[in-house]
Order: sequence, then structure tokens, then C-alpha cells
Amino acid sequence: MSLQEALLAGDRLALSRFLTQVENGEPQAQTVLDSLYPYSGQAHRIGITGAPGTGKSSLVNRLAQQIRADSGRRVAIVAVDPSSPFSGGAILGDRVRMRDLSGDTGVFIRSMASRGAVGGLALATARVVQVFDAIGYDVVLIETVGAGQSEIEIARLAHTTLVVEAPGFGDDIQAIKAGIMEIADILVINKADLPGVENTERALRMNLDMGYAEAGHHGAGALTPYEEGTSVPASLWVPPIIRTIATQTEGIAALLNSIAEHFQYLKQSGRLGEIERERLSVEINRLLQQRLVERWQRGQKPDAVAAALEKVISREWSPSQAVDWLLNPE
Amino acid sequence: MSLQEALLAGDRLALSRFLTQVENGEPQAQTVLDSLYPYSGQAHRIGITGAPGTGKSSLVNRLAQQIRADSGRRVAIVAVDPSSPFSGGAILGDRVRMRDLSGDTGVFIRSMASRGAVGGLALATARVVQVFDAIGYDVVLIETVGAGQSEIEIARLAHTTLVVEAPGFGDDIQAIKAGIMEIADILVINKADLPGVENTERALRMNLDMGYAEAGHHGAGALTPYEEGTSVPASLWVPPIIRTIATQTEGIAALLNSIAEHFQYLKQSGRLGEIERERLSVEINRLLQQRLVERWQRGQKPDAVAAALEKVISREWSPSQAVDWLLNPE
Repeated sequence: MSLQEALLAGDRLALSRFLTQVENGEPQAQTVLDSLYPYSGQAHRIGITGAPGTGKSSLVNRLAQQIRADSGRRVAIVAVDPSSPFSGGAILGDRVRMRDLSGDTGVFIRSMASRGAVGGLALATARVVQVFDAIGYDVVLIETVGAGQSEIEIARLAHTTLVVEAPGFGDDIQAIKAGIMEIADILVINKADLPGVENTERALRMNLDMGYAEAGHHGAGALTPYEEGTSVPASLWVPPIIRTIATQTEGIAALLNSIAEHFQYLKQSGRLGEIERERLSVEINRLLQQRLVERWQRGQKPDAVAAALEKVISREWSPSQAVDWLLNPE
Repeated sequence: MSLQEALLAGDRLALSRFLTQVENGEPQAQTVLDSLYPYSGQAHRIGITGAPGTGKSSLVNRLAQQIRADSGRRVAIVAVDPSSPFSGGAILGDRVRMRDLSGDTGVFIRSMASRGAVGGLALATARVVQVFDAIGYDVVLIETVGAGQSEIEIARLAHTTLVVEAPGFGDDIQAIKAGIMEIADILVINKADLPGVENTERALRMNLDMGYAEAGHHGAGALTPYEEGTSVPASLWVPPIIRTIATQTEGIAALLNSIAEHFQYLKQSGRLGEIERERLSVEINRLLQQRLVERWQRGQKPDAVAAALEKVISREWSPSQAVDWLLNPE
């Protein structure tokens, strides 16, 4: 049985080993990735992001359990921690996950830590998600920690993005404002039994309203906002605010309903196709950049960059002049 | 008078216009950047990062005012908001700054918003900081919002990195743990008059101790940790924890002392040279990557990438196969 066949047949050990090859960018993985690619494009990719301490991981676990119980659809969880390039920050969450979800062969969990550049992690995550999609996982939950450019990069991989807040975090308007609202398709207030939940919801609603006013109603979550002058579609998605208590499985059914509605909206409005196009375009450009650098390096003396660096450190050349020389040595 | 002369002579309007050219990556700016480069390498670059709501901007203002009052050294403030690529999130902070610092020609403030990729912003920020350094600003304060990969990219531009916490933010260990501690040279608890300051300090100290235990005492803040087996220098920098109340100018003098001590440590230990080397190496590599893509694009039919994208969307080619074709069309 070939590796591709083993993966499509559900061999978990083969999958685990293959994902490691994919993450490490090993060349032999590429042929299998290519052969799997035509099978992809079926899964619902759901992004879950929010600050540490909002209970994201528990929420992701409950969503996975509920999807399994409701419909038997297969669920992959990809947990990405771009904020921690130095330490293995994902390990604690993994243990909680193992306890909740182990023993169910319809669930597969994969944690990924940052390896240097955001671009590298986003590319590796894109590939891992593509593998799950291709081999028959119906739902891929992509969980990221933190707030910032990394989340926006990862959000591009998802069809539906959940932004998770919790009372005590979300009641500071400034804390919410920082970019993350604009990628939210659904807002979740987890730990909704904590005091301050009303304040959190009020702050979120104010932010939503402000966002709509500022953006001239182009709709939150639109990575490619409608340009001025073009007609705005009649049916816009307004991000709902859903309260959950993940540890008590409260609000999970309502959240799953909302997720299903959003997927429906994407299909009917034509946004799904736009999102796919945008995502694949970004992936091609990223890959192109990586390959161009690799190709250039092969034609170089190994110490050319080091020699240029010395000239820059001694202030003989500017960085730009150094790169001119590297690209066109006399 | 040439633009370079105008900049070195302190023409603020010329500087403002030039920085816009630099940010936009306009080709005519490069010649001036190159001619300024030999003057750079003098400034103390100080990074200030932390979550929204910790009072970072007020702290930066007070630091600038105090440096001006103490020594008359010229101060540039570069405020970077990588978390908000869609909206002009930096504007509010700017107004506060204008009020506190306007009228002092020894201070120049520049806000930068994200333009797409983190790499692009980091490169633009590197250039703007280099300009301030070259034209005689003795201290460059680089302020970033949020926590994540973007901050680590920006931190590489700084010699000394301050991580700002505030009571009610920092008392959740998980919130602190997320990567950001590892870039801190100095930990600041701002708003130290708020309740909970003891908890915040205890949590920070625990994190520091944990970090040291995990890292085998290589010292927090070291972007290039000492490798196993090499001798660890006797004098290590242990990040101090400084309490401030920026709005009442409390703790600012102690913080400036600590900043000066850290710069001293960098010089004496040889770390300063290592940081400069690392920073310039990253800049050269980033620039090389950008120019390789530009060079490749010039040799292409304008619709080649679009044609490849269609094949990928129809699942005829994988993204990798599309890039193979773009680089080696039959």
C-alpha cells in the first residue's frame, strides 16, 4: 500500500509521520502532497482565535465532541502557537485535549509551534490543513493563540473565524479593538458565568457597531472589502455574539448552529469561492518567494552573504548596496 | 541644499516627506538611504511592547520628556501597530503624544501602520529607525502594540526591549507566558497604583524564574542563546522589574537608570555587536528575498501567476506544481 493509500485509508501512524515530514518541509513529502491535492476543497475550515486565558482550547474540545456526537463527521484539530517561537507552549493544552478526546478515531489532533518566520508557519499550517481536508476530515478546527498579524495570516486559511473573549478580558474596549475584531465572523464570550459578562457583551457590540460605521458597512470579516463605488450585496453577514461556558458544554449547540449558518451564507453569497481564491493566491505567492530564494542560493558561493554582511557592519555598504552586489557581483 | 544635507541639518518638513517615501518604498528614497547609512550605528534603540491598555504610549511620552530634560539628547519615537492592518489604530495615541511633546524640536514622532505582510512592516520600520539614527537622534523609542511574532520581529531592531504589563493584565500567568517574556530586557509594571500590583509582580517573577530554569540560565532576552557546551559568561543580564505610574511620572527615573545600565551591559559583554550583526543579517536576507521576487516578476508575462492560480483552483495543479511551472514554463 502506498503512503497516499494508507493516508486515505485512515492509517493514523502513517498520518502522524507524514505530518512531521510536511511540517519540516522535507522534499519527499511534496510528491504525496501533490497527489493528495485534488481530493482537497471539501472540508469546512474553522479558525478559533483569542487571547490566552479565554478558554479557547476547552471550547475547541467541546466543539469537536459535539460535532462527533451530532453527525459523526470527522474532525481534525490543528493547534498553532505563533507567539511562542522559543518554548513549546502548546504542550499544556495538548494534555487537556488528550484527556477529552482520546479514543475517538474520528478525531485527530496536531499541535504546531512556530519555526522562525510567520510566513514559514503559515505555509506549514496551510499544508497540514490541506492534508486533513484531502484525506476526508469534514471539519478542520484551526486554533491560534494571541492577537496580531499571525492570527490574520492564519485566519486566511479558515472559512469561518471565531474570536473568543472572556469576561475580564473583553471589557476593555482598547483590548478588543486591536485588529482582531475585523477578522471575526462569530464572536464568542466564553466563561459566560463569570461576573462582568454584560460589560464584555456591551463592549463587543459597541466595537461591532463602530467597525460597521467606519467601514461603511462592508461587513466585518471581509478580508477583501468591497471597494468604494461597487455595489454592496444585499445580504451581509453580521457577526453574532454567542455566550458559552465550554467547561459545562453550555452554548455549544447554539455556536455550532451559528457556524453552520455562516458556512451556508458563504456558499450562497459566493464569498466561499472568493475566500478560496484569496487563500490559494497567497499560498502560491509565498511558495514562489521561497523557491526563488532557494534557486538563487544554489548558484552562490556559500560565503557570499557573509562577505556582504561584513561590508555592511563596517558601514562600507548599506544593506541595499550589499544586496545589489549579491544579485549582480562584478 | 541636497535632501541629505537638509535631513542632517534638522529640516523637519523634509524629514517628514522623506519618511513617507521610505515607508512607501519609493525607489528615489534608496539613494538617500544609502548615502545616510554610514552615519548610522550611533543611537540607542529602545523597544517598548505590551498589550493594549497597559499605558505604553503614556510611558513612552514620559521617557521622551525625561530624556530631554535630563540630558538634552534628541529622541525619535516610532510607533508601530502591526495588529491593525485595516484601520488607522495609531491615531488616538498620536493625539495624546502631540499634546505632551509638541513644540520640542528635539523630539520627532512617527506612526507606522501595517501594510500587508509582517516582513514589509519590519523592513519599513528598520529603514525609518535607520534614518533617525543616521541624522543624529541619540535615542530611538520603538513602540509596538500586541504580543506575537510581530513584536519579536520588531524587537530585533532594538538594543533594549521593555515589556510593559499592568495590574489586572499581568496577574494571569498564562497571559504573560505567551512568548513575550523571552524578549524582555526590562519588565515594567505600569499603572502601579492599581490594585493587584503585588500579584502582577509575583507572577512576573515566577515567569522569570521559570524561564531561567527552562533555558538553563542562558539569560532571558537573548535572541541567540548560548549553545550547550560553550562557556556562559560570568556576567548575565537578569531582567529587572520596575514599577511606574506614567501619568504621574513616577518610576521614570528608575526606569531610565535601568535602561542605561542595560546599554552599558550590552557594550561591556560584547552583546551589542552580536545584536547589530543579527539585525543587519536579517535585513539583508529580507531585502534579498524582496529583490529576487521583483527581478523574477520583470521577466514574466503579467498574467502568468493568474493563469497558474486558475489551474490550482480547478484542482488540476497543486500550489507546488503551479510554482514549478511558473519557475520553469515549458
